[in-house]
Order: sequence, then structure tokens, then C-alpha cells
Amino acid sequence: MNHATHNNLDNRKAIVLLSGGLDSAVTLAVLHADGFQCSTLAIDYGQRHGVELEFAQRVSRALGAVEHRQVTVDLRALGGSALTADIAVPKDRDLAAGDIPVTYVPARNTIFLSMALGFAESVGARHIAFGANALDYSGYPDCRPDFIEAFQRLANVATRDGVQAAAAGQAWFQVHAPLLRMTKAQIVLTGKKLGVDFALTTSCYDPGANAKPCGQCDSCRLRAKGFTQAGVIDPRVM
Amino acid sequence: MNHATHNNLDNRKAIVLLSGGLDSAVTLAVLHADGFQCSTLAIDYGQRHGVELEFAQRVSRALGAVEHRQVTVDLRALGGSALTADIAVPKDRDLAAGDIPVTYVPARNTIFLSMALGFAESVGARHIAFGANALDYSGYPDCRPDFIEAFQRLANVATRDGVQAAAAGQAWFQVHAPLLRMTKAQIVLTGKKLGVDFALTTSCYDPGANAKPCGQCDSCRLRAKGFTQAGVIDPRVM
Repeated sequence: MNHATHNNLDNRKAIVLLSGGLDSAVTLAVLHADGFQCSTLAIDYGQRHGVELEFAQRVSRALGAVEHRQVTVDLRALGGSALTADIAVPKDRDLAAGDIPVTYVPARNTIFLSMALGFAESVGARHIAFGANALDYSGYPDCRPDFIEAFQRLANVATRDGVQAAAAGQAWFQVHAPLLRMTKAQIVLTGKKLGVDFALTTSCYDPGANAKPCGQCDSCRLRAKGFTQAGVIDPRVM
Repeated sequence: MNHATHNNLDNRKAIVLLSGGLDSAVTLAVLHADGFQCSTLAIDYGQRHGVELEFAQRVSRALGAVEHRQVTVDLRALGGSALTADIAVPKDRDLAAGDIPVTYVPARNTIFLSMALGFAESVGARHIAFGANALDYSGYPDCRPDFIEAFQRLANVATRDGVQAAAAGQAWFQVHAPLLRMTKAQIVLTGKKLGVDFALTTSCYDPGANAKPCGQCDSCRLRAKGFTQAGVIDPRVM
């Protein structure tokens, strides 16, 4: 714990949530390029695509994170999603339909950011980053700007560091979502420019043996669209 | 999942966070008495006083909850507290000092309420309750009214049910903290009136064999003060 940091607004320590996917890898690359000292956090929440946790660990190392931690939380006990419960992952769904699909995990980003907040406070970090994206996203409410703003506000009243900074008239925690207004193609191009090795990322909700992507779930299809529009070859589907 | 409920503001389904302690038991009794259909949630977060989880299960049954669930999350991986890490629990600390003690677990209530929110959404419940107390509390930032208000706001932008209700101009999730402005003595008297069996509750941060309370940690001392001022005998210290 470093309680001396809470008056130092030059603090550049960041916790980056890593899923093992494309978006969170590019998020880490952006924070790193912007001069943040990044620690990464992956969550084992009983997801059927648990192989992504190994990808997260490799991406963390490849992109120069200071430290990687993994926390286990059994969200299967709460039920309610195709990603954790015994509900089929939808294939070839209409992405333009605008509804929230069954792969939505109730309160997932709230739970994950809360854990990132606990990690941040325990190591004296001021910054928290995650790969939320409000354009080419899958219709999840917890990827919208309103959500990020509300979480940042909560973080600053929920914690010792937030309350101590507020007493000095300062907002301590900052939540970063650098991909928020990027298209999937822009995310791919940003990752390419920053040297992200896309072979180290996995996006599929329902992978086969050897983490082979299914090609039909929302996540595979959004990824494919992004690579195609960016004119970049995805090494994971070669 | 019951998605038909999100337009029904008469929904009385509540998720009550249970720790196994006095405050959360009385919270459950209050919600139950107010006509809520309560499901309870206990969190195994690697706490050194893990025995409280058995108390939570017994209290849930005794106070008529519909269902009890337990979620495991290993907060020890995040470090930073005497309740989860290898830091001694302070004894006979000055409770009037106004500082935040080392038993503070970074972002604990944020993490727990996030899980309660996920549980609530997956079973179509509108109400979330926990035993926060802003008077005789231990100096934790996440037991204050500001925190509760910020969490409720977050809940309503973070979730499918919240967003769908907001589209109809309604606030869906309500966070209840019925003990917020009670003294510990008032909590004891409320519990007594509602028939809470205090023998089924445990408050100690550092219990000995057979869950025997240490009598010296903040939590034991706040509890003792409450029972004494209420003129009620605590069956757990007889």
C-alpha cells in the first residue's frame, strides 16, 4: 500500500482489465504508449471461453505490464448468461437488431471494474482502464459513456483514496476507456501501429479445440468485420 | 430470468447481502417485515473470519429467505487488508480516532453490491439491501449515504433492466440500507423486536475456536457497546 500517493496527481500507475481479447490488448498498448505504468488484471469468472485467461497473461507480458494478477469469482452462482450458464451462444445473430443478447452477463463490467478498483487502491494506483467500446459493441449497457461516468463517480466516494483526495478538493480515480468511440477497424489499426501481436489475442465466445475461433458468434463476427475494414489480416483465422 | 418484471414497479423481490453478522441479519429482518420477498447472498472472499459464512446460511433460513446463494471471490489476490492479507487485526483501537483502519478491504462493498446487482438482474429482482451503517460504523467510506446514492445511480445505467426502465422514465434498482442512521443500540432493539435470534449472528473479525469472539477487535467492541446501551444480553458472549 502506498498512501503517500493520494496527494500526487502525477501518479501514472494504472490497472488495466485484460480479457485476452483484441480490445483490452489494444487498451493496454494505448495506456503503455501514453506513459502509464500498467498492472493488468484478468478475471476468471467461470466463462466457457476460459482459454482467454492464458491469452491475457501472454498479452500482459508482451506489452510490458509491470505485473499481472488473476482473480477468481464464480459468476456461475449468479446465473443469467450464455457465457456462464448452460444457455447456447447465439450464432449468426442480427448485429443490427439493437437488442441485448443472451451473452450479456448481468453486471459484469460493474463487478470487474470494482475488482480493478480494489486492486488499484491496494497498490496506490490512480488510473483504471478497460476496453469498453460504444460503437461496434454488442449492445451491452455497461459499455456506454454513462456507465463509465457513473462508475468513476462511485469510485471516488467508495474508497479511502477517493475520500482523502476529495477532502483536498481533488478527484482521485480516473477511469479510461480509450477505445470508447473507435470503430473495430480503428481499434485494429491502433493496435497495429502500437505493435500489438494480434496472434496473442482471442475473441471467440465459444472456441473449439486449441482455442480455435467459431467464426459465428457476435464477437468473432465483430472482430472479422474490423480486420476486413482495416485491411489487416487476422493471424488468428489464417 | 424474468424480463416481464422490469415494467412492474410493484416488484418486491429483494437481494439482501448477508455477512453472518448482526447488522445484515437485522437488515434481512427489516426487509422481510416490510413485505419484501428476500433472497440472500453471502460472499466468500477469503476472509480470515470465514466461519461467518455458516452463520449467514443459518440466519437466512431462520429469517424466511426464499433462497440463499454463496459466491466465492478471492480478494486475497488483490491484497491490502487485515481481513484478507497477513496483517494483524488491531485490538482495543481508539474507535473515536476517525481514521480508516487496516481492516478496511479496498472496494469491498462496491464489489459485494456489484455481485448483488448481478444476482438481482438474473432473477428479476428490483431491490438490493445491505447493512451499511453511518453512525456506529468503523470509518469505512463505503458505508456512507454518498456511496449508496452513487451505487444506485450506477446500477441503473449498468444493467439491462436499468436501461429498459430508464427508457420508460423509471428508476429500476433501489438500494436499501435501513440501518444507515441507526445507532448500534437501535439496531439491537430493532432486531429484538423483529425476533432476530442473535445467537445465529457473529461479528468478530478474528474469532477463536468454535467461532468464539475475541472481544477486542473493532467489530466485537461496537457490538458489545450496542447490546449494553440497548440493555439486551448478547447470547454470543455469555
